[in-house]
Amino acid sequence: MDDVRFRDPAGTVREGLWHDDHVHFGDDAYDLEEVDVLAPSEPTKIVCVGRNYARHADERGEDVPDRPLLFLKPPNAVATHGSTITLPEGKDRVEHEAELAVVIDRQCKDVAPEDAEDVIRGYTCFNDISNRDDQDREQNWIRGKAFDNAAPMGPVLTEDIPDDAAIRLRVNGQTRQDSSIEHFIFSIPELIAEITAYMTLEPGDVIATGTPEGVGPLTDGDHVEVEIEGVGTLEHEVRQAE
Amino acid sequence: MDDVRFRDPAGTVREGLWHDDHVHFGDDAYDLEEVDVLAPSEPTKIVCVGRNYARHADERGEDVPDRPLLFLKPPNAVATHGSTITLPEGKDRVEHEAELAVVIDRQCKDVAPEDAEDVIRGYTCFNDISNRDDQDREQNWIRGKAFDNAAPMGPVLTEDIPDDAAIRLRVNGQTRQDSSIEHFIFSIPELIAEITAYMTLEPGDVIATGTPEGVGPLTDGDHVEVEIEGVGTLEHEVRQAE
Repeated sequence: MDDVRFRDPAGTVREGLWHDDHVHFGDDAYDLEEVDVLAPSEPTKIVCVGRNYARHADERGEDVPDRPLLFLKPPNAVATHGSTITLPEGKDRVEHEAELAVVIDRQCKDVAPEDAEDVIRGYTCFNDISNRDDQDREQNWIRGKAFDNAAPMGPVLTEDIPDDAAIRLRVNGQTRQDSSIEHFIFSIPELIAEITAYMTLEPGDVIATGTPEGVGPLTDGDHVEVEIEGVGTLEHEVRQAE
Repeated sequence: MDDVRFRDPAGTVREGLWHDDHVHFGDDAYDLEEVDVLAPSEPTKIVCVGRNYARHADERGEDVPDRPLLFLKPPNAVATHGSTITLPEGKDRVEHEAELAVVIDRQCKDVAPEDAEDVIRGYTCFNDISNRDDQDREQNWIRGKAFDNAAPMGPVLTEDIPDDAAIRLRVNGQTRQDSSIEHFIFSIPELIAEITAYMTLEPGDVIATGTPEGVGPLTDGDHVEVEIEGVGTLEHEVRQAE
């Protein structure tokens, strides 16, 4: 039984529950086809972590960092479960990156690792869509990572997650990424401590915890699933702008 | 006569006018000491431009880029006119960077340079405070540029600005930066076109257009003024956390 934000058939935004293949609010239960699932929060910022799995650093030909490699996706990057993502125009290589995302519960700064649990609202699935054409030639990953739709997230928010939750990504039913969050280089409490040493996190802000090995290209017509054990499966379509 | 957002003596946020050393709303005129001047907008993101003046690229030992060098400051970075900025703890070199900032008027994407004027609400003064200790050793400038208070902006929003407006920064009355926006490498219309090719800008979003030469250190007790001809003077204090 997980939290879900959705737009009901009347067009009103609701914070309900997702169980038994229906979304529930008050006494109403809706079929998934009747509602629009929204992102689990409206972040003021998404703080992303690069190279947080050693095998992904390897496949990108990069060293494992000595402290978390951080970058930002702004609110324009948010996209939802069930949506169709339009890839940036004229790029040769736009790739998927399955990630576990943490949603923050309350405004916080200078959080010690042992207190990190207290500021977490829950966990969701995330795809850190990456335009390598630009990422690989710019200092800050703005064109590469911060473009519209570059952060599909959802569908639900789960309060607890196993320490060794499996994380998988499928494109058109074929498994591309298959790992476990037990391979994190920096743990979630370490990430929250490092980020909040510099910046205040707001309720609804998101930390995307990095992707395991197996990243690969997305093309027009792809159907993407990011599945995280104990959370659920984020699904979205991909189209290429003409 | 410029637009100013402020908190009135009753604590209510007002969008008024600043003229004759008073802020005005309806029939009320307030002394500057009676009100708290707020940032001229509440951006969902601040898109910053690096090395947009050749002489500043020089002083940082960097080449002039072949396309705008972009980076992001999230909303937690916003700070106001008249405020006291706390510098990040334990850093040797935190520097000022005087900049002209553009505030966006309406949601827009794929804006052609010739239409850029239509999406601009106005201009304000900006200080791109930069923590060089971290900036110089990280891929994305997050610890270096996106920390709390790293983007003082204000005090007013001006509709028009001369093409050769002077831009100056003083610390404790001494001039540190003294240039003109006529030395931009990329013009404001070019910047808006490049940014909106990748991301949607929202009403109130800010583009910080880069700093001229003369950047230098900030320390505890400093009084900083960013003066832009035709706009006004942003003032803030600096303190060093113990």
